[in-house]
Amino acid sequence: MKRIAVLTSGGDSPGMNAAIRAVTRSAIYRGLDVIGFRRGYEGLLDGDGVPLTKSSVGGIIHRGGTMLRTARSDRFRRPEGINEAISRLREYDIDGLVVVGGDGSFRGAWALHEQGFPVAGIPGTIDNDIAGTDSTIGFDTACNTALQSVEKLRDTASSHDRLFIVEVMGRSAGFLALEVAVASGAECVLVPEVPFHLEHLCEKLHYAKQRGKTHSMIILAEGVMSANQLASRLKDTGGYEARITVLGHVQRGGSPSSFDAVLASRMGASAVEMLLEGQRGFMVGYVNQQLTSCPLPTAWESKKPLNHEMMALVEALSI
Amino acid sequence: MKRIAVLTSGGDSPGMNAAIRAVTRSAIYRGLDVIGFRRGYEGLLDGDGVPLTKSSVGGIIHRGGTMLRTARSDRFRRPEGINEAISRLREYDIDGLVVVGGDGSFRGAWALHEQGFPVAGIPGTIDNDIAGTDSTIGFDTACNTALQSVEKLRDTASSHDRLFIVEVMGRSAGFLALEVAVASGAECVLVPEVPFHLEHLCEKLHYAKQRGKTHSMIILAEGVMSANQLASRLKDTGGYEARITVLGHVQRGGSPSSFDAVLASRMGASAVEMLLEGQRGFMVGYVNQQLTSCPLPTAWESKKPLNHEMMALVEALSI
Amino acid sequence: MKRIAVLTSGGDSPGMNAAIRAVTRSAIYRGLDVIGFRRGYEGLLDGDGVPLTKSSVGGIIHRGGTMLRTARSDRFRRPEGINEAISRLREYDIDGLVVVGGDGSFRGAWALHEQGFPVAGIPGTIDNDIAGTDSTIGFDTACNTALQSVEKLRDTASSHDRLFIVEVMGRSAGFLALEVAVASGAECVLVPEVPFHLEHLCEKLHYAKQRGKTHSMIILAEGVMSANQLASRLKDTGGYEARITVLGHVQRGGSPSSFDAVLASRMGASAVEMLLEGQRGFMVGYVNQQLTSCPLPTAWESKKPLNHEMMALVEALSI
Amino acid sequence: MKRIAVLTSGGDSPGMNAAIRAVTRSAIYRGLDVIGFRRGYEGLLDGDGVPLTKSSVGGIIHRGGTMLRTARSDRFRRPEGINEAISRLREYDIDGLVVVGGDGSFRGAWALHEQGFPVAGIPGTIDNDIAGTDSTIGFDTACNTALQSVEKLRDTASSHDRLFIVEVMGRSAGFLALEVAVASGAECVLVPEVPFHLEHLCEKLHYAKQRGKTHSMIILAEGVMSANQLASRLKDTGGYEARITVLGHVQRGGSPSSFDAVLASRMGASAVEMLLEGQRGFMVGYVNQQLTSCPLPTAWESKKPLNHEMMALVEALSI
Repeated sequence: MKRIAVLTSGGDSPGMNAAIRAVTRSAIYRGLDVIGFRRGYEGLLDGDGVPLTKSSVGGIIHRGGTMLRTARSDRFRRPEGINEAISRLREYDIDGLVVVGGDGSFRGAWALHEQGFPVAGIPGTIDNDIAGTDSTIGFDTACNTALQSVEKLRDTASSHDRLFIVEVMGRSAGFLALEVAVASGAECVLVPEVPFHLEHLCEKLHYAKQRGKTHSMIILAEGVMSANQLASRLKDTGGYEARITVLGHVQRGGSPSSFDAVLASRMGASAVEMLLEGQRGFMVGYVNQQLTSCPLPTAWESKKPLNHEMMALVEALSI
Repeated sequence: MKRIAVLTSGGDSPGMNAAIRAVTRSAIYRGLDVIGFRRGYEGLLDGDGVPLTKSSVGGIIHRGGTMLRTARSDRFRRPEGINEAISRLREYDIDGLVVVGGDGSFRGAWALHEQGFPVAGIPGTIDNDIAGTDSTIGFDTACNTALQSVEKLRDTASSHDRLFIVEVMGRSAGFLALEVAVASGAECVLVPEVPFHLEHLCEKLHYAKQRGKTHSMIILAEGVMSANQLASRLKDTGGYEARITVLGHVQRGGSPSSFDAVLASRMGASAVEMLLEGQRGFMVGYVNQQLTSCPLPTAWESKKPLNHEMMALVEALSI
Repeated sequence: MKRIAVLTSGGDSPGMNAAIRAVTRSAIYRGLDVIGFRRGYEGLLDGDGVPLTKSSVGGIIHRGGTMLRTARSDRFRRPEGINEAISRLREYDIDGLVVVGGDGSFRGAWALHEQGFPVAGIPGTIDNDIAGTDSTIGFDTACNTALQSVEKLRDTASSHDRLFIVEVMGRSAGFLALEVAVASGAECVLVPEVPFHLEHLCEKLHYAKQRGKTHSMIILAEGVMSANQLASRLKDTGGYEARITVLGHVQRGGSPSSFDAVLASRMGASAVEMLLEGQRGFMVGYVNQQLTSCPLPTAWESKKPLNHEMMALVEALSI
Repeated sequence: MKRIAVLTSGGDSPGMNAAIRAVTRSAIYRGLDVIGFRRGYEGLLDGDGVPLTKSSVGGIIHRGGTMLRTARSDRFRRPEGINEAISRLREYDIDGLVVVGGDGSFRGAWALHEQGFPVAGIPGTIDNDIAGTDSTIGFDTACNTALQSVEKLRDTASSHDRLFIVEVMGRSAGFLALEVAVASGAECVLVPEVPFHLEHLCEKLHYAKQRGKTHSMIILAEGVMSANQLASRLKDTGGYEARITVLGHVQRGGSPSSFDAVLASRMGASAVEMLLEGQRGFMVGYVNQQLTSCPLPTAWESKKPLNHEMMALVEALSI
């Protein structure tokens, strides 16, 4: 390999820039050239590539978002798209491609692999819903961002004796919601992985009030329902007046946490190393404190289980 | 005066605890006793008072919310409410009352004053919509909280080439929105004080795009319309797809900023001093870097003007 | 078991309060009473115990420091100290003791165990220098605190084209320094585990300058030498003018990060569970994403290795 | 005027980038060209100028430090230096120069003015020691940065029952120390403007201990003495064991606070406006909430008074 490319795809997540920097610098350190494609697969199809140098990735490690930007690409999903992308990669003399993104981005990368092009995936998403790795880049930062918001809401909730519903991101997974619920000492957490009964929730809130709790915080994963829906159902069924907050895209931004900056740096360097060792069509993972690799399809074919002991903990610790 | 009371009323704001501490400690320093009433006027009517000591207000200066909690009180608004409140104050041997809150809270305080009870007001609200003072306690903190969120959104907006609408608080005033817009370098700001034309906004967005701006940020004061409404109107009129974020109650929480902690400390001490000097029915203000006082009705009878030079600045600096 | 006690000992670390809360609430949830001893073993010897209830540990999960305070105790280290402590525990009808702290605190707990008293240890230190667990409570928070400071210093370093030495904590271990160095993209890291040659460092700085680096950041673990010493040696040997910053006790404070709040909650609950299951003289660990236990002496008899791949990464990524 | 230049000089401060952006964009908005000189007067002498465009100052408003960098220049201080600088400015066809910095930088600007070159000064320093303006750019951010550190130290101080000395910046002025002391509820503050008696301090600490204060925080302005010196004098005179923390350069970095970002934006736009109106040799100030101007020498000839009422407040509120 003489020249590799890197792109970010799908939703942005904090630490993507640290991953771009690590891929670039460790590739240069090993004697490779690096091209960055802007706006994900869309930019790849447009031939929107720029050389990445030691200094062009300087000063970005702590910046949120992605300097290469990201985009959806409908063109790429079509069969012609894959071939066109490979042509573009060949035009640029690219010998290997590193894709930073989530499972959708990895399906794209896998399609390139199936056409014989060497690809590596780095899991970058705040949702942590990627099997084959304990953590994805951005998840820890998003947990901290959401936690800090919930702590601010707690100030108001406790000052006004109120019930708050906080809707957090996570797509169809509850990892972010569960982590934030335990970390913030929330009274309840609702996640898509665990069936939800409105009556139980009302009973719980009722019982909390009886025990003297003057305020309660419900952490709601967006994959369950919207905060608005939950609020109106709580009102209809139990007569509860809840304030709602939808944390929204704020969770995607910000400087990466120490954990994410380190994870992104290590994964970026490993992706290059593994490509040089001859691995193909793989995703870099972080499993049991070790950098590992697995076939890309693991990311979407396996299902990462939620920690049910932590679900029980929310219950036990909010008595 | 031998004993004064303090309560917080209306929406909570960061720095209320610093004000409670300052009122308490400077009163004790001058030989007075202090009672804190919980849950605003509602708690006053319920006789829910607790002695505040040097140590009971220790360690609270940097905490968000209010340790005395706050509440709405319909009972207090009725004529009997006022008299009942004065009876309660007499039962507790209170010679003066300090109310920390916004204009609604001050109307209540004024009613007590009109019945002959010595009261002082300290402006505490994140909205900064109180005439008679350049700044209210909590405004600066809310600006910083909102700014930090907008900076995080900017990461995502610039990574995805998107248009974002950020709805900030402020009730019927645009102070918070305008400050955040200038501080964040937003492309547009919509405030209740300035009439708003959808066509102009669309033109502006169009022109920005032409000049090569790949993303834009609109700061919307809640007093204009909801972010949802604006988004659908932008879509209908100009075909723009905007992402929306409603910052919500997060803006009310958090540790007070340095400015707010100092302002609250100074206002709290001044309220006690002015009461001891014989002032009655007044609000402490901070005008031109000086602690001042004005009659309580100034707070709602005068209208604090928005800074139009800053409105123009948003335009000039987002070219 | 009917009643357990908890105390914090040694240097404080963020998340200790979350651990106290988790021990208390999960114990109450399982029908136990809980006593908290103030000021570590010193308070235990003084009989300075307070009942901990569901509500007395409310609102503390996100607070830095430890509500039970902590202290050194020379009295406790003497043989009589151990016996006296056990007498005190018996007076309070305590059936088991949970100690949150570092290896020094665990030696004390082990002495109680050897006298037949049921004890559990929870690793709480920002240094992460405890074998038997991948992470200690407070380490992740300290990494984030130090990282944020280094990012601020980077602003000034890059504005002034300067060389900065940042001394971080860690006692005789380099975990904190190494994590912060990778996360901040520092040019060099010096840790006690890896021998250090001044000439190599000077060469490296020289070479960095030649490559056009206008500023450099050296992360120095306190266990190597002081920042002052390094600065004067760099001046003497290589003529380098370095600015120094000693992050100091700031690294010990602050709200726990999401990771630490979750870790503390899970470890606190597990300590109670394991005591109830009959485990004795153990430390709760977090190994490969699982809660585990090991004999207390593991904490100081084994040596936790530094990650040498990460040392190499600092080199490769700061080219 | 057709073309103006901007440079940052002296110590960097948060908000300098926001000022550069405001100068640049408001100048372009009014039809001017803008050149930025790197590394202050040193870069000016070297002819190290770059055109600043609308987009080259995009995305910098919230970044700490200064994108133009800064430096000391001994060459510039010599009489030939001034003439050489004016030659350089003429080579670049510059009609006016905006200097962002402190009093040292303004003396340089004044020397240019005295040779007939149109200059404007914008006060940028975290020390706030510039007469003619209530606030300098960076002061509010530094207060918040220092406050957040002191809050973290308070966690440890209160957990360990300790005495802490925190040394903050400020050169020969006590503005930063005083603000932080009031905002953090510190027990003592030592500033250069107020003579200091060690015996009084010891008495105060003694008395605080008697009243049951288990920990104390002394905020020390660097202009008084070093934290090390104070600690050893406190030990010698009163037997006190104090922990020390020197906040250091961290105080200079970080994203500007909302206040500073707004102040910098307004001052930058005003500097351009005032130059266009024909003002010369002036500094932009912010006095009583208004943008004003004064002759540059005001910055160093007048002395800005410390607020003595706030000194008294530290005393009264830390009882």
